[in-house]
Amino acid sequence: MSDVREAPIGVFDSGVGGLTVVREIMRQIPQERIVYFGDTARVPYGTKSRDTVIRYSRQIVRFLRTRRVKVIVIACNTASAYAMETLQQEIELPVIGVVKPGARVAARETPGGNIGVIGTEATVGSHIYRDYIQSLRPETQVFEKACPLFVSLAEEGWWKDPITEAVARRYLQEMKDRKVDTLILGCTHYPLLRSTVRKVMGEEVNLVNPAYETAVSLRELLREKQIDNQGHNKTGENPYEFFVSDAAERFKAFANSILPFDITSTRQIQIEEF
Amino acid sequence: MSDVREAPIGVFDSGVGGLTVVREIMRQIPQERIVYFGDTARVPYGTKSRDTVIRYSRQIVRFLRTRRVKVIVIACNTASAYAMETLQQEIELPVIGVVKPGARVAARETPGGNIGVIGTEATVGSHIYRDYIQSLRPETQVFEKACPLFVSLAEEGWWKDPITEAVARRYLQEMKDRKVDTLILGCTHYPLLRSTVRKVMGEEVNLVNPAYETAVSLRELLREKQIDNQGHNKTGENPYEFFVSDAAERFKAFANSILPFDITSTRQIQIEEF
Repeated sequence: MSDVREAPIGVFDSGVGGLTVVREIMRQIPQERIVYFGDTARVPYGTKSRDTVIRYSRQIVRFLRTRRVKVIVIACNTASAYAMETLQQEIELPVIGVVKPGARVAARETPGGNIGVIGTEATVGSHIYRDYIQSLRPETQVFEKACPLFVSLAEEGWWKDPITEAVARRYLQEMKDRKVDTLILGCTHYPLLRSTVRKVMGEEVNLVNPAYETAVSLRELLREKQIDNQGHNKTGENPYEFFVSDAAERFKAFANSILPFDITSTRQIQIEEF
Repeated sequence: MSDVREAPIGVFDSGVGGLTVVREIMRQIPQERIVYFGDTARVPYGTKSRDTVIRYSRQIVRFLRTRRVKVIVIACNTASAYAMETLQQEIELPVIGVVKPGARVAARETPGGNIGVIGTEATVGSHIYRDYIQSLRPETQVFEKACPLFVSLAEEGWWKDPITEAVARRYLQEMKDRKVDTLILGCTHYPLLRSTVRKVMGEEVNLVNPAYETAVSLRELLREKQIDNQGHNKTGENPYEFFVSDAAERFKAFANSILPFDITSTRQIQIEEF
């Protein structure tokens, strides 16, 4: 039986957005293997109800466990908001989401306690960022705003674009009016629009990328639990495996525009059977 | 046993877009009852594969049959493109989609045989409009273009808006360069952006709304098969019933912005159980 240290990290998202988290894990802990599942048949999660997102997340965890993962990373803000606590109670594997690492950094680094959060309707409606930030620093003010068009703009590839900038100016005006000093990019697609958001918000505002912070927290968690890969990949297998619930070719094309190298194969599975 | 003429029309879509078809049916054949199903848990269909869309459509038809509908209207261009022939072969109820009625009118009315089609990636990639139009009039030229942001813009409510206009100018420039004389709004969301598309394309271009043409074809079909409601709604039930697979409240709010009167209730069902 192989050492748990060499087992892969299981990462899931509603679709392609979680690849920004995968990218950070690849950069920060390159010796780790990854099994990624993108629920491309049922994307987006951001407009779905809590019960549905929990049901879908349970199916995905059952699938990831068939790949013998050592930890689960919920690389989706909506699923982190709705399903993380339930999953943590139900399984004995460590589960990490993108919300807490991002919220923690924002709470720690905000100079004036004036924090903005942008995300999907579901993430914003759950108030999970606000509640967690205020549990750490009760004196902070947290303003939340859904930016639904950002996902389509990111998927269209219009990352630096006058139309994206016009949309960002409209969505973010309220953040500027409220003079937020720290803005959390609370949807995994949003880091792709980072330079446009930066341009609109100005240089003085901290932008927090939960994907980056999640990879930092994941590395710490693996060390703490003594399940980090020591750099021996004896099996010689492909260190990165990608699975989707629909349209594997489309996923691959998008993945290759985000990740530092081209992925060789993506397999489609029937997620409803898990 | 009640007369089949008094049975409702079953209408389905991937989400809220099909309500533009419902609106046309309400206007053109107000004596008919309607059962609508919006697959809000699994929206959008436009980026999904053929197999998945067929599987989902079969489940929905099984659900609609439990409501004893007399005809199935596929109020979704993607599902019409992928699933209509399969459904027509599998069930004995009449099935009507939105593609053929729209394509027929475009083929008939194009002055110069230069037709444009805009829709989701799936609809455009299937070439169903092009193939059907050219089967009717082989000499026509058909240019197809996916406009993925239009759905989000319509759902955001930015129907007449400078940002929507800028997006439309970019997507439709090729249609203008190719001097199309007739443009099919090949996604059920797009009629909501009609005035913006009109402004960009100019007054001289015919805009074809498949939702309108589908209601015309449906009325003819009901008469031809002698299953049209004669105007006696003896049962006294609510003539319009709405079902969704997720987030009924959100659906209701959007429906009330599109339909000529407020809908009273929307019920959520587990569509995967059908």
